[in-house]
Amino acid sequence: MALISALTPVFVAVLCVVIAAFFRNYRRAESSSQQKRSPAAGETTSRPWVDEDLQDDTEVSAKDDEDDDWVVSETEELPPIPYIPPRYSEEEMLERSQQLYNLLNQRRSVRFISPEPVPREVIENVIHTAGTAPSGAHTEPWTFVVVADAETKHKVREIVEQEEEINYKQRMGDKWVHDLRRLRTNWMKEYLDTAPYLILIFKQTYGILPDGKKKTHYYNEISVSISCGLLLAALQNVGLVTVTSTPLNCGPQLRVLLRRPANEKLLMLLPVGYPAPDATVPDLKRKDLSDIMVFV
Amino acid sequence: MALISALTPVFVAVLCVVIAAFFRNYRRAESSSQQKRSPAAGETTSRPWVDEDLQDDTEVSAKDDEDDDWVVSETEELPPIPYIPPRYSEEEMLERSQQLYNLLNQRRSVRFISPEPVPREVIENVIHTAGTAPSGAHTEPWTFVVVADAETKHKVREIVEQEEEINYKQRMGDKWVHDLRRLRTNWMKEYLDTAPYLILIFKQTYGILPDGKKKTHYYNEISVSISCGLLLAALQNVGLVTVTSTPLNCGPQLRVLLRRPANEKLLMLLPVGYPAPDATVPDLKRKDLSDIMVFV
Repeated sequence: MALISALTPVFVAVLCVVIAAFFRNYRRAESSSQQKRSPAAGETTSRPWVDEDLQDDTEVSAKDDEDDDWVVSETEELPPIPYIPPRYSEEEMLERSQQLYNLLNQRRSVRFISPEPVPREVIENVIHTAGTAPSGAHTEPWTFVVVADAETKHKVREIVEQEEEINYKQRMGDKWVHDLRRLRTNWMKEYLDTAPYLILIFKQTYGILPDGKKKTHYYNEISVSISCGLLLAALQNVGLVTVTSTPLNCGPQLRVLLRRPANEKLLMLLPVGYPAPDATVPDLKRKDLSDIMVFV
Repeated sequence: MALISALTPVFVAVLCVVIAAFFRNYRRAESSSQQKRSPAAGETTSRPWVDEDLQDDTEVSAKDDEDDDWVVSETEELPPIPYIPPRYSEEEMLERSQQLYNLLNQRRSVRFISPEPVPREVIENVIHTAGTAPSGAHTEPWTFVVVADAETKHKVREIVEQEEEINYKQRMGDKWVHDLRRLRTNWMKEYLDTAPYLILIFKQTYGILPDGKKKTHYYNEISVSISCGLLLAALQNVGLVTVTSTPLNCGPQLRVLLRRPANEKLLMLLPVGYPAPDATVPDLKRKDLSDIMVFV
């Protein structure tokens, strides 16, 4: 009895150490499961569309990946020069603005693309046009990779379809899958083989200075998206079609396939060509002007 | 002694509870300080350009604020209709593509804007054109607020300049201030008073369904940026000028000033008008086509 009484403090001490260790491990397990849970929950339910292309990120590109912005659109200490663009009469302005609206209002996202060849020079002019977009601090943070080679196009298709299938089956939340089902879209992307050109638009998240240091590209995603807007206008202007897409999670694989450097991340993939003779589009309408414009 | 011996287990138990409580609180404090530390460091040093407009965020908009994307550009279970756009000869395509390049290559960001009035119908056509952009799941997540009222323009200017001054003096990292200094730009934005129109482009981070539920707007920022690309093309097409800007941290104030709902966040602010007679631009060059295009 004396022995038991003498040992009681030891038992209690052991018990308490066990309790302390339990709390310690419990906290650790909880916090690590939270760390794992939040992104996982985001990926599988509410944020299925977030690209997981982070494996070649640096401290710079990891940040620039998000919604960047810019204050000014040119850099360099350059001498100012006069700017005298063409001036049109009010009648001409009205007519020109109406004409461009009519042209671009006919644009539709088209998934049925003819394999007919398209002159390469037209594609070059169209990309040259996209390159006139403004960009944060005039960094021009875009690379347009034009894939015409059949074998490479097919490899692009394989990568995209493989990831799309995983996206559909595993990563997408019910809501997103529902939205897509309404579109009767699936992960088969035949146009990636048939279109004469695939234009893969990479955003350059940072640049490399002559001394080897990294130069942040402010607002690279917005800049490249604006450039894509000009590209779409230029394609429509010559009677070519495309569908704006950004394949999920394919960035790293496509970047490696196309041998692009680590500072470039895939933003969009546009198959380009003439529409197939039997091309169809969903019979959707656009919002009225009064629904998108507010006058103050 | 017997009393002390009998009480020892109690002391040890108390001690162990204290140890357990210490571990528990230590873990909690550590994880909460980590939570606080990381965003603060990002905001004050490495990410000065991130808009702090988070005060009207919901779980939806907080996420959609980042680099969203889309897989498909239309939604709705709509019947397919034939799509037969105009078809041009190869010669016409070459000529048209070269003409549009020549037109848009003359575009420059212009900060010297004439106060001359511009026909409102032209602005309407230009915005209507921007509204033809593709968007994630055809959500058309844009609102173009056109400010022509002089008093409101001045209030916009006051808000922007006040925040810009703070940005320059407090929030910007040395590197960013250096980049701007090279531009001889400061936080005075005279054009916000003089331009006949300010176009404030809001991205709708989510929509409201008829039943009052929120509908995620996938890829709203990329969609609105593409739309802005069409807007820039349409402005250049009629001889008007602008400068692409996104005032830092002004979003919430400008949203309130312009009475926009909580699901809308300011993405860009474009002053629009004719160029001032003495307008100048920095004598910068654009990259060669070979520097932005890769052919595979």
